Amino acid sequence: MIIDCHGHYTTAPKSLEAWRNRQVAGIADRASMPAASELRITDDELRDSIETNQLRLMRERGSDLTLFSPRASFMAHHIGDFGVSSTWAAICNELCFRVARLFPAHFAGVAMLPQSPGVDPATCLPELSRCIDEYGFVGINLNPDPSGGHWTSPPITDRHWYPVYEAMVAYDIPAMIHVSTSCNPAFHTTGAHYLNADTTAFMQCLTGDLFKDFPTLRFIIPHGGGAVPYHWGRFRGLAQEMKKPLLRDHLLNNVFFDTCVYHQPGIDLLTRVIPVDNVLFASEMIGAVRGVDPETGHYYDDTRRYLDATPMLSDADRSKIYEANARRVFPRLDAALKARGV
Amino acid sequence: MIIDCHGHYTTAPKSLEAWRNRQVAGIADRASMPAASELRITDDELRDSIETNQLRLMRERGSDLTLFSPRASFMAHHIGDFGVSSTWAAICNELCFRVARLFPAHFAGVAMLPQSPGVDPATCLPELSRCIDEYGFVGINLNPDPSGGHWTSPPITDRHWYPVYEAMVAYDIPAMIHVSTSCNPAFHTTGAHYLNADTTAFMQCLTGDLFKDFPTLRFIIPHGGGAVPYHWGRFRGLAQEMKKPLLRDHLLNNVFFDTCVYHQPGIDLLTRVIPVDNVLFASEMIGAVRGVDPETGHYYDDTRRYLDATPMLSDADRSKIYEANARRVFPRLDAALKARGV
Repeated sequence: MIIDCHGHYTTAPKSLEAWRNRQVAGIADRASMPAASELRITDDELRDSIETNQLRLMRERGSDLTLFSPRASFMAHHIGDFGVSSTWAAICNELCFRVARLFPAHFAGVAMLPQSPGVDPATCLPELSRCIDEYGFVGINLNPDPSGGHWTSPPITDRHWYPVYEAMVAYDIPAMIHVSTSCNPAFHTTGAHYLNADTTAFMQCLTGDLFKDFPTLRFIIPHGGGAVPYHWGRFRGLAQEMKKPLLRDHLLNNVFFDTCVYHQPGIDLLTRVIPVDNVLFASEMIGAVRGVDPETGHYYDDTRRYLDATPMLSDADRSKIYEANARRVFPRLDAALKARGV
Repeated sequence: MIIDCHGHYTTAPKSLEAWRNRQVAGIADRASMPAASELRITDDELRDSIETNQLRLMRERGSDLTLFSPRASFMAHHIGDFGVSSTWAAICNELCFRVARLFPAHFAGVAMLPQSPGVDPATCLPELSRCIDEYGFVGINLNPDPSGGHWTSPPITDRHWYPVYEAMVAYDIPAMIHVSTSCNPAFHTTGAHYLNADTTAFMQCLTGDLFKDFPTLRFIIPHGGGAVPYHWGRFRGLAQEMKKPLLRDHLLNNVFFDTCVYHQPGIDLLTRVIPVDNVLFASEMIGAVRGVDPETGHYYDDTRRYLDATPMLSDADRSKIYEANARRVFPRLDAALKARGV
């Protein structure tokens, strides 16, 4: 079984974006703020948007199940206040829930949170609980920079974030540390801000001692860990200078990397450097890079090809990366699969 | 001959830091602001600080000449105003000039600029000219984020920066795009901000068309290019979606990467992915990572070992990375070496 731990609903019906545009306009002109109930998307529309896109590609590429969350770049937590984020998160999470209900063998939900800059993350807990308890979601995405590229929040090791971690531990769910759109002109969203956030979050964990307080907390650093595996020697050396334990002991019981790295040399490096138990298969398909690589004739984001081709992995390693690690890091997914006899 | 294109004067006599501390204190209390002339460092002190540190390691590791600039993390352009930066840059550049004069076979100067947040970069031109004309420096370091982690400047492709580029073209000197200390608690200076800046600067270049306006402009992206080589497929794919030319044509006549990557797999990736003509040897020795790697028994930042060991390079390739590329990218260095018969 092949589990893709990083998929977003990037192909939602256009009426979702139209509603969001009205919501954003409504921030300045309250009279025009739409009600959530004004958005109507039918099951047929959802089915069509998935069958012709993600599910088609999953079949072509041979992946079975995608952990599916709202579109990352559309979270845009910097827009509006907590109320705006709250309504928007509820709508987006519900759509992912409906997709998972329509295609239970192929999608399991991961929640976006109604974060808002400067707002206590504890305000996200009702939506988090709803997604886990009522929707059966198996994880969350946590945005370390709800300001959208201005980085005004404390590091993710700060007690500011502890309410979310306490809920994660109680529910035994992991978080993917994933930013959203950059509204800072210095940072291209998918070419700089995403990768920078991955590196930044890892380094915050390295600098802090968060996992002493939460020994079972689990983070997935997406996009192959940003710059981290490529600079693994630098990070080992920085940890050494800070008198931290070896990274394996300091972080690797709690920090995992996905495989959203879009060329063979990158996957070869990732799987050479990072222990196999810390790598989870992912493609973020129909995401940042949707084209075909003229050097290979295949989609850049068809990451399974690189994993199948890399000389760094045995078949047993691949099986961990494709399935076992995801089931270990997402115990609620494992339980749901077992309940279905998978 | 082995040229290290990335060295900072991290081992300057302590009186430099003491003077700087007084200068910083003087921002709030003008009466206590020290004069530049109050800093006195003798040639013997300079000689000692170099012979026991950089020069000792250069001899041990077999590198011949280091391009030497003021300590990057101490530039701290976010502190004070243009006047503060101007005095500080002048002092730091003069020390590098004196080091290069004391050890002309082993050091050539690279200038820091007196940048200051929100100040027109054209204000840096007098110091730039002084360093090239009077000190014989061969390049500059350009900080794309003088705010120190708040990223308040326009992208480096913006016309805001053009006065510096016009001078670079006129002098035929390259710039290393190098940030300084982060004063944003989200970003660890050497573990996040440096690498993020490398990735950010590259992506700004990819998004823009700067090199159409300045076909001979040359940037060195330090620290092995941040996350860029590891995600080369992502960047190729993003360029493709933006209808840019192939990266080789779009950027690689103008953008170069150094080899400050502190483990063998990283150097293997860099030299596998990036064309050999775009890689310049560097170690940033006595910099961010000063320890010995317990996995190898050698210094993390002894990057020559990785380049000598990588199976990705022929001897002819190594010769380019060690010498020829630096002489091509830094024509004033080449001219100075030729004048000395080297």
